Amino acid sequence: MAEQWVYRFDDIAAAEASVGGSWDATRALLGGKGANLGEMTRAGVPVPPGFTLTTRACNAYLSADGQLPEGLWEQVLEALQAIEQATGKRFGDPANPLLVSSRSGAKFSMPGMMDTVLNIGLNDETAAGLVAATGDPRFVYDLYRRLLQMYGSVVMGVDDALFEEAIQEVKDARGLRDDTELTGEDWRGLTERFKQGVARLTGRPFPEAPEDQLRMAIEAVFKSWNGRRAVDYRRAAGIPNDLGTAVNIQTMVFGNMSADSGTGVTFTRDPATGEKVLYGDYLMNAQGEDVVAGIRNTRPIAKLAEDLPEVFEEFRVICDRLEQHYHEMQDVEFTIERGKLWMLQTRNGKRTSRAAVRIAVEMAREGLIEPKEAVRRVKPSDIDFFLHPQFDAAARKAAADQGRRLASGVNASPGAAVGVVAFDADTAEAWGKAGRDVIMVRVETKPDDVHGMLASKAILTSRGGATSHAAVVARQFGVPAVCGAEALAISVARKRFTAGDVTVVEGDTISVDGTSGEVFLGEIARVMPEMDDPHMTALLGWADEIRRLDVWANADTGADAQRARDFGARGIGLCRTEHMFFETDRLPIVRQMIMAGEDEAVRREALDKLLPIQREDFRDVLSAMDGLPVIIRMIDPPLHEFLPGHDRLVDALARAEVRGTDPEETERLRALLARVNELREANPMLGLRGVRLGMMFPGIIVMQVRALLEAACQLAREGLTVKPEIMIPLATHLNELTAMREIVETTAEEVFAAQGNRVDYKFGTMIEIPRAALVADQLASECEFFSFGTNDLTQTGYGISRDDAEQRFLLAYVERGILPANPFQTLDQEGIGQLVAMAVRRGRRTRPGMEMGVCGEHGGDPDSIHFFHHAGLDYVSCSPFRVPVARLAAAHAALEEPAG
Amino acid sequence: MAEQWVYRFDDIAAAEASVGGSWDATRALLGGKGANLGEMTRAGVPVPPGFTLTTRACNAYLSADGQLPEGLWEQVLEALQAIEQATGKRFGDPANPLLVSSRSGAKFSMPGMMDTVLNIGLNDETAAGLVAATGDPRFVYDLYRRLLQMYGSVVMGVDDALFEEAIQEVKDARGLRDDTELTGEDWRGLTERFKQGVARLTGRPFPEAPEDQLRMAIEAVFKSWNGRRAVDYRRAAGIPNDLGTAVNIQTMVFGNMSADSGTGVTFTRDPATGEKVLYGDYLMNAQGEDVVAGIRNTRPIAKLAEDLPEVFEEFRVICDRLEQHYHEMQDVEFTIERGKLWMLQTRNGKRTSRAAVRIAVEMAREGLIEPKEAVRRVKPSDIDFFLHPQFDAAARKAAADQGRRLASGVNASPGAAVGVVAFDADTAEAWGKAGRDVIMVRVETKPDDVHGMLASKAILTSRGGATSHAAVVARQFGVPAVCGAEALAISVARKRFTAGDVTVVEGDTISVDGTSGEVFLGEIARVMPEMDDPHMTALLGWADEIRRLDVWANADTGADAQRARDFGARGIGLCRTEHMFFETDRLPIVRQMIMAGEDEAVRREALDKLLPIQREDFRDVLSAMDGLPVIIRMIDPPLHEFLPGHDRLVDALARAEVRGTDPEETERLRALLARVNELREANPMLGLRGVRLGMMFPGIIVMQVRALLEAACQLAREGLTVKPEIMIPLATHLNELTAMREIVETTAEEVFAAQGNRVDYKFGTMIEIPRAALVADQLASECEFFSFGTNDLTQTGYGISRDDAEQRFLLAYVERGILPANPFQTLDQEGIGQLVAMAVRRGRRTRPGMEMGVCGEHGGDPDSIHFFHHAGLDYVSCSPFRVPVARLAAAHAALEEPAG
Repeated sequence: MAEQWVYRFDDIAAAEASVGGSWDATRALLGGKGANLGEMTRAGVPVPPGFTLTTRACNAYLSADGQLPEGLWEQVLEALQAIEQATGKRFGDPANPLLVSSRSGAKFSMPGMMDTVLNIGLNDETAAGLVAATGDPRFVYDLYRRLLQMYGSVVMGVDDALFEEAIQEVKDARGLRDDTELTGEDWRGLTERFKQGVARLTGRPFPEAPEDQLRMAIEAVFKSWNGRRAVDYRRAAGIPNDLGTAVNIQTMVFGNMSADSGTGVTFTRDPATGEKVLYGDYLMNAQGEDVVAGIRNTRPIAKLAEDLPEVFEEFRVICDRLEQHYHEMQDVEFTIERGKLWMLQTRNGKRTSRAAVRIAVEMAREGLIEPKEAVRRVKPSDIDFFLHPQFDAAARKAAADQGRRLASGVNASPGAAVGVVAFDADTAEAWGKAGRDVIMVRVETKPDDVHGMLASKAILTSRGGATSHAAVVARQFGVPAVCGAEALAISVARKRFTAGDVTVVEGDTISVDGTSGEVFLGEIARVMPEMDDPHMTALLGWADEIRRLDVWANADTGADAQRARDFGARGIGLCRTEHMFFETDRLPIVRQMIMAGEDEAVRREALDKLLPIQREDFRDVLSAMDGLPVIIRMIDPPLHEFLPGHDRLVDALARAEVRGTDPEETERLRALLARVNELREANPMLGLRGVRLGMMFPGIIVMQVRALLEAACQLAREGLTVKPEIMIPLATHLNELTAMREIVETTAEEVFAAQGNRVDYKFGTMIEIPRAALVADQLASECEFFSFGTNDLTQTGYGISRDDAEQRFLLAYVERGILPANPFQTLDQEGIGQLVAMAVRRGRRTRPGMEMGVCGEHGGDPDSIHFFHHAGLDYVSCSPFRVPVARLAAAHAALEEPAG
Repeated sequence: MAEQWVYRFDDIAAAEASVGGSWDATRALLGGKGANLGEMTRAGVPVPPGFTLTTRACNAYLSADGQLPEGLWEQVLEALQAIEQATGKRFGDPANPLLVSSRSGAKFSMPGMMDTVLNIGLNDETAAGLVAATGDPRFVYDLYRRLLQMYGSVVMGVDDALFEEAIQEVKDARGLRDDTELTGEDWRGLTERFKQGVARLTGRPFPEAPEDQLRMAIEAVFKSWNGRRAVDYRRAAGIPNDLGTAVNIQTMVFGNMSADSGTGVTFTRDPATGEKVLYGDYLMNAQGEDVVAGIRNTRPIAKLAEDLPEVFEEFRVICDRLEQHYHEMQDVEFTIERGKLWMLQTRNGKRTSRAAVRIAVEMAREGLIEPKEAVRRVKPSDIDFFLHPQFDAAARKAAADQGRRLASGVNASPGAAVGVVAFDADTAEAWGKAGRDVIMVRVETKPDDVHGMLASKAILTSRGGATSHAAVVARQFGVPAVCGAEALAISVARKRFTAGDVTVVEGDTISVDGTSGEVFLGEIARVMPEMDDPHMTALLGWADEIRRLDVWANADTGADAQRARDFGARGIGLCRTEHMFFETDRLPIVRQMIMAGEDEAVRREALDKLLPIQREDFRDVLSAMDGLPVIIRMIDPPLHEFLPGHDRLVDALARAEVRGTDPEETERLRALLARVNELREANPMLGLRGVRLGMMFPGIIVMQVRALLEAACQLAREGLTVKPEIMIPLATHLNELTAMREIVETTAEEVFAAQGNRVDYKFGTMIEIPRAALVADQLASECEFFSFGTNDLTQTGYGISRDDAEQRFLLAYVERGILPANPFQTLDQEGIGQLVAMAVRRGRRTRPGMEMGVCGEHGGDPDSIHFFHHAGLDYVSCSPFRVPVARLAAAHAALEEPAG
């Protein structure tokens, strides 16, 4: 007995059984489209009857060099009879002809890559019959010429342009503009011309016999699997070549057959807001493409209740049933043929980030899905949407209605920005530094442009996609960007661009939406991120219950800490104490401290001035985080960062010396330069910073510990619960930590004695140099916690100076695929990740259960968060705005773990 | 039965048996001195009879709170009778009194830390008897007063200064200057004063009974184990407190008792040259201290053959026997008492490095030791001696004889230098740059001084030891140094120092011997290192047979490569191609290449000019290494290293702008500065260099590979055997190596086609960034060899920029003991070593037997070489001058492996 090559849509159970019942195998056998049509049929949804030829049939056909496998054709004819019985129509019967479509459908969607033939079954006789039945020759001959056109190009290989030229000739001859103006007679005449043309060009006549049409259409689809377009697509998309395509033969239904016919496209929920209402459009007496093309004004789906109340009710119930069946919001196409509703397609509906959150949450509340499934469905980038400024929806619509939408391109880096246009990096930088909001516009960007890009509020290019230099840099630095907006004609030389008939010159204002990829003329009002969205709150609440990894934030001030807490941070993983030093009122004191050199008295005086200021800083942060842990990092950056720039001093001194007019100023500059030179380093990243500063100038550490613990003791007396953790940066050798711990403990005891009360605190270190990870077992003997500084760990472990490398080679590496990703965005798990995993393992070997976390930008990156989860960290700490994203990503990581 | 607390010297076999026969346990029981005296006795050497009280006796005494353990005293008396029988003298017998010494002797030598009492057994009666016997009251009463003095201070606790004062009073009263001028009567008077003084000060009379003297002396030695000096010493030296000390009671013998008495000190071989001749001095009728003090002119040992031929012959035989017994050159002390030879002490003799080599080699040839024992005995630092310039021995002696030896201090960094004195770093630097040979003289040095130290030929300080800043820096940079020359009174302010009555002012010439620690006025002629020493050659030959680790060298030129080969290098592990670029005739071309920027044509032109030059360079190196492998490293340093200094340009441009007189020059400076700024990096160590340059500018690699393989093909045609290995620096990701390998292979095939012949070559990479070690298993798939660049691996893995850190904190860390060693001198095995071991393991997992080596300074460091041996490397590569040291160290590493 021959293999079963053909399955009717209503026989999907048999197909499923033949492959062992798995949905994936069923899709492999029937293709995605065929499996879905079967699935809808099984769900009791009215689907135009049809059947599927399996992918195995395709492979058998191709490997037999174009021989239909044994038994296939008999099975096709048998399935066709079943359709005829179901529809009451007959293939080739002029009185009531059955028309079918033949469509490809592989396991993975390959849109537009393979061929389709519609209206199979039409010939001169059936066409005439159909005219008699419908009284609409225009409708019938339009169908017929479409068959001929598709058949001619797809099956017989005639250039499709020739058909279009013929249509154009007729229109030209009649002085017409649109196809719709052609009459039934015009179309009939064209069918004649098409048939003659095909015969003349190919030497073979168009087959009038419907069964011949069908067989040849099926074979054409099989062959299209190895067509050049399809092969190229598969290579690019990584789809294996041996899957083959299925062929779906389905009854044609027509929404333009009568007044009680119609067609429409609908989402089962609002794809913009997520609200549970049907959302879509339809047209009576129209074809599907009329709805999409926007030639006629469509009617909102709710109006169907007025036009065809029973059909609408049936449709509503079907939509519910589809959601129940698929557990997802659906995007459906339907046709009403003479009052009878047919569902043509259903698929999961695309939606905005906002809608994604609401739909997931509401479906969970409706019991359609589990809360953890809701969490799984929302992508971190959906949450990210809430955290970037967005254009106000009404203002954006108004701008579009006013024709101010200039172009769209790749939404390369999210966020909305308004600014004045600059066409080169130097201008962008100059204006940016001058406080103007600049949008840098280039055909494409290069490393030379980065200084301008960094000074811009958004970046816009007319060339390049999501992985172009502009896109990578923009995402890297969180600058919104639209790339490859090809509608823009940019002339950098003339400092202008045109979009259609609009010309924008340097200094004009535009608005760029990096989230949607759109560009508008003029300003559009923006709304700031809000965290009070109730669905988001609910979703993140569920995420919090699922995740094992805690989420903390990096914050240097009380205000930042409060924001982080509002966003759900359960601790501060990094409070950079020296950032406090850069503020205008403090910098002179810090410089005094540094200029002290060997003069201990001067240094002590400066430290004494800094103490009360730092104490206040720490009070703010600790009180904002009442009850939660706060990790304070001791001074970290090289001292010369606090001094005036070296180059500027060399320049100023040279000028002063040549002028020779102000000996006093010259002397001052000379002294300053001398000290800057003393502190200057060839490679500051690897120099005197972090704990090394503390070892050489222990007075700074004493001051910082004193300020922190004095604030902590005061707050504790005021009734707050403080949990300070003192973190030593850059340690590489146990002896450094032993020395620091002694200083910290001695100072703490002095403070407690003076304050009259004690607070608990932890002592720990950052793991940010490879050696620290290698000897983590030793370091753990002095530390109660580790915090991974993966930025610096990447810089040293990968030998890449972030400041230098990104512009000079790193972005080129990513663009050329030498590196899979920028290791400063997504942790290099393969290399640097080994150091993290090693340090966790070794640290906990010495001190079981030791607190471990990561601070730094990787802490907010979803891919990296997955890794940290698996590495066994206790928390990730990221910028306050990334906290919600991290909460979700952490939940995803937990959900992906194998059960048990 | 009581434990055996006492062992006679001639009963060492019993002691040994009681602890199971191990020499270590015997030393623990009897102390080092006691065990050695026993050992000499057993070897048939005439040792003044005596016995040892065990360390267990000491511990028992101390833990019983000063009770002599049961049976001990009886055993002492018994042993004393044995001595009396052996010597024919009797303890306390005025007619022929036995005198003994009581000396401490712990397992480990603690020189001067515990107490000694001599001449026990003298009292008024025995002294009188001895005078009668010798006819020499001066001799006898000098002995007697010594007993009283030592006994008084050691046993009874009287301040020794009081005794010296009393002697001084007598001398003053008699107008005498030296002790030697005092008569027997003077000494007799002093014995009376001493006895009275002791009794008055302590309330206890001096015990006249010899047995009381002996018992109290023994107890005093026991107690001295817990004296403050001894406890402090043990803490510093890491000697356990529970070892206890043994006490040795030995018959006194006197070399000043008669004309046929004498005493001397002799080495069994010449400790300066290693020649096998007795080398030493003696004096007839003298005490041991007379020989050392140099008051009387000593006679060379050979003269003893004239004075006492039989004694000399006996002595000669004994010396041979001692060498046979100890398998080492001995440093012996002897005394002849009335024609009878007694050996007082023998120990392994100290020797110069040159002698160490010769003695080891000759002993092996004599069959005294195995060749591998000879190899084991020579220290790498002994070999090092041969590799630094040394003062000519005759010239040095002449200078010393002329009184030009100014001082001596710690021999902190080896080598001999002659130069003019400078007292501050700026002067030293200025003179050094001006081409003068400078010797920088400071009380001590600080990080501020380093620039001057680096410009100096030697460093001399009056304060600080082998771990002082000056010493560490000097060794680091291979600058000879003498530290802590306390005899110098240095006035930096007055720019002069005095040594005794010599004054040296700035600009005067001195000679500094960092090997011996001596300083001389004026110039001493030097000899350059020689590798033709036959003993060294033999020794290194044996080392080569033992070692498993091969020794290669780093060399950039044909001359260097030839020298390396002469020194025994079996390959070139690192040929730095870019060093060739710095030469004056090439730098302009290199600059042209760099200034080309985006202009590919200009760059190509420059590369075309460089090609023939590099080809010649490679020809030289490859032909010098005919038959041996040569690893060529592709271009490595950041490009800006080839451009003029940035600061100088900023300064020059500012000046030119203010002057405004030469617009053309201003413009040129501006363009140059712009390009320098483009190439400038915040952290060049982590920037665009190594393979990253090759990735961005592949033309450079193509040129270098072409030059190398063209040279190789030519030489192969000329009949040479070339083994080039192409090394890619700084790789961190497999994709970099895949890309480079493709370029190399393509270029190679082009060259082979054009040349008409092929050569084998290897392709490999440096492992010098932590990530490379972490993913070594991947990298090995593209590489035939790895070479560890442990300098950079330390910089990145430890997060330490060598240029910056040493002056700013690293040397301070080493001085303060935060780090055990400078990790750039000796590999940090604990941390960075893990990366090396990991990469070896992982690389060979992918590619079994893969060639692995290390280049860079650690390759010449003995400690690091041991590590590399154990890590399983195939070779170490170091500077040509270090090759002999590395050969020896590699042999040591192999010798230390457990057998089998």
